[in-house]
Amino acid sequence: MENLIVQKYGGTSVGSFERIEAVADNIANTHKKGNDVVVVLSAMAGETDKLIQLAKSIQPEPEPREYDALISTGEQISVALMAMALTKRGIKSKSYTAYQLGIKTNDRHSQARILEVNVDRLKDDLSEGSVPVITGFQGMTEGGDITTLGRGGSDTTGVALAVALNANQCEIYTDVEGVFTTDPRICPKAKLIERISFEEMLELSSTGAKVLQLRSVEYASKNNMPIRVLSSFKEGNGTLVCEEGNDMEKPVVSGISSIDNEAKLTIRGVPDIPGVAAKILGPISDSDIDVDVIVQNISAENNTDFTFTVKQEDASRAKEILENTSKSLGGGLIELDDDIAKISIVGRGMRGQSGIASKMFESLADNEINILMITTSEIKISVVIRKDLQEKAVNALHNAFELDKD
Amino acid sequence: MENLIVQKYGGTSVGSFERIEAVADNIANTHKKGNDVVVVLSAMAGETDKLIQLAKSIQPEPEPREYDALISTGEQISVALMAMALTKRGIKSKSYTAYQLGIKTNDRHSQARILEVNVDRLKDDLSEGSVPVITGFQGMTEGGDITTLGRGGSDTTGVALAVALNANQCEIYTDVEGVFTTDPRICPKAKLIERISFEEMLELSSTGAKVLQLRSVEYASKNNMPIRVLSSFKEGNGTLVCEEGNDMEKPVVSGISSIDNEAKLTIRGVPDIPGVAAKILGPISDSDIDVDVIVQNISAENNTDFTFTVKQEDASRAKEILENTSKSLGGGLIELDDDIAKISIVGRGMRGQSGIASKMFESLADNEINILMITTSEIKISVVIRKDLQEKAVNALHNAFELDKD
Repeated sequence: MENLIVQKYGGTSVGSFERIEAVADNIANTHKKGNDVVVVLSAMAGETDKLIQLAKSIQPEPEPREYDALISTGEQISVALMAMALTKRGIKSKSYTAYQLGIKTNDRHSQARILEVNVDRLKDDLSEGSVPVITGFQGMTEGGDITTLGRGGSDTTGVALAVALNANQCEIYTDVEGVFTTDPRICPKAKLIERISFEEMLELSSTGAKVLQLRSVEYASKNNMPIRVLSSFKEGNGTLVCEEGNDMEKPVVSGISSIDNEAKLTIRGVPDIPGVAAKILGPISDSDIDVDVIVQNISAENNTDFTFTVKQEDASRAKEILENTSKSLGGGLIELDDDIAKISIVGRGMRGQSGIASKMFESLADNEINILMITTSEIKISVVIRKDLQEKAVNALHNAFELDKD
Repeated sequence: MENLIVQKYGGTSVGSFERIEAVADNIANTHKKGNDVVVVLSAMAGETDKLIQLAKSIQPEPEPREYDALISTGEQISVALMAMALTKRGIKSKSYTAYQLGIKTNDRHSQARILEVNVDRLKDDLSEGSVPVITGFQGMTEGGDITTLGRGGSDTTGVALAVALNANQCEIYTDVEGVFTTDPRICPKAKLIERISFEEMLELSSTGAKVLQLRSVEYASKNNMPIRVLSSFKEGNGTLVCEEGNDMEKPVVSGISSIDNEAKLTIRGVPDIPGVAAKILGPISDSDIDVDVIVQNISAENNTDFTFTVKQEDASRAKEILENTSKSLGGGLIELDDDIAKISIVGRGMRGQSGIASKMFESLADNEINILMITTSEIKISVVIRKDLQEKAVNALHNAFELDKD
């Protein structure tokens, strides 16, 4: 049986004619080496934003169903152009929209989840030596409406097709060389990671590493589909994201992620009674606001200070809700602070190892970085600090855990 | 039962945000008067040409299947924006691609013909008081590929939906006020026609009048679906294209059309034997070149001079084919002349009336316009003349048949 590879290329990878031609060369090379290839594309860089502007000039808060119908045209353009570029190279190729293939999703517009993928047409094409090129980022509801999967959704389309086709590997081509120990723009010593487990990648993606969409990693992990993250601009082997093998080393810390787009909300002096957390967070999640870090402390007077973080764009709405809650609970003032950053260290070697947390806190203390909040999971420790210390903290921790060393 | 109107708007009618808003107002007015409305849209003016440029920069002769997939995104953008603009006005609205509705066509890409229209979803929407907005110009094959219907194809989509929905009328909104006695840019005295029969409209469309796509008129005529041609820029009743009624006047000449994009090919001195026309034209049509006017004359020496017209873009290819034919038939030289215009007068009052042709020829003679070719049908007479006399001829005939009078 042939080797089957699903290749997904992001928006900057197909952002111009020259880029489409360069990517077509790469696909042609993979195909000529005797591999079966299925291609998934994002919209050409800038195209989706242009369409969003179009929508907003008609309706500031566009109808979700129509918004998805509109922006799904971006990928339809890039796949048709790519199929032409491949045909020009003597390779049989056909483009498909998610609608044509019947990539079924739920009906949560702009944030839809893939439920079912039909790959019969793709299998027919592959058996004829053809290279199918498929729109990423989109799907259709059972009722026949067009949906989109949210930013980075093309990664998930790539993984879902790889799983459905039982591919050998899913290659995600992007504008960086792979997964780094931390963001190289923040820390110049950041090193490319050759291999990382699904579990660690999940933690890194969920705490700010942008290289892979979180849902695509979940999907790959659940179905054990190895992902290779590569640059479409530069030669290299990139990073293999796969199941943890016995042969893999277990670095204490594999990577460091950070984000600065959250805000911290505190409600002071809430009576410490059972169910108070639910009473505070219930109305927040009812308003579709995602809560990230949550910390609750009991103060001296047996009152509770309750603090959590949300996305900055949701912060003022969350504050309003909290003010109402505080009134009914007899709580105190609400504080809002959007001048924060969250730094996370991730490593499966952390499991069962003590001393990692204190090493992290010591390193931050040595650099005079005050910790505002702490939260931990089995293979991750996150701290919230002042935003202006973000870069200093990432570099300090990168040094402390010697991530620049082999 | 409600009055059901299908409204089709062309590319210039939806060519900008302001235009989309203006058209949305017009749709909203029609809807508020208690009519059920189904809308068909072209791509925003310029959008399709932009996509064609994109395709040609990748592949000078783009793959037909991919070309259709690419340019069909133009209408998808305009229908989604229109559905938003209607929703903003408090009118329920959903956009549909031809693919979503299942508008089935044959598989002749870029020139596809509609075979079947499924309107179940539209009926459901209408029963809920919603206004469906549908991409014109496109369809899908039985096998699930995207097709387009060729320039002006949105008119046909409009008529096909009107027929399938058993609508009361199909309104075609364009950038002119309706059907004129002749092209107002050529003849300033041209008058708006209030009402014209399908039969005459067919002859006018097939001889150069661009206001309605020929196929849409055929479709409407076959299914007796009245079309009203209107301006989306200017108030007015436009032109009603419908079955000839007993109450309709029968003007001798209803309209004058003209084209200047054809070329004339002549093969001289062909032996006058049976089947010679087929031998000359067979290889031409085998090469997918459409032949328009055909004239054959027997010369004094019992040889035939054979002349016909083709589109200018096909002329040099046709000449090559003719040169081969001439060799094998023992014919003479081939002459190519692309400096010609064809003028047609159309009127159902012509039927059974003698003297119309001679009146036409006299008028041209009085204006010193030499006739190169003549061809007639039951309700039409066409002449081929020198191109530089086109305007003079149209104006002379418009006067001679008093088309500026009531």
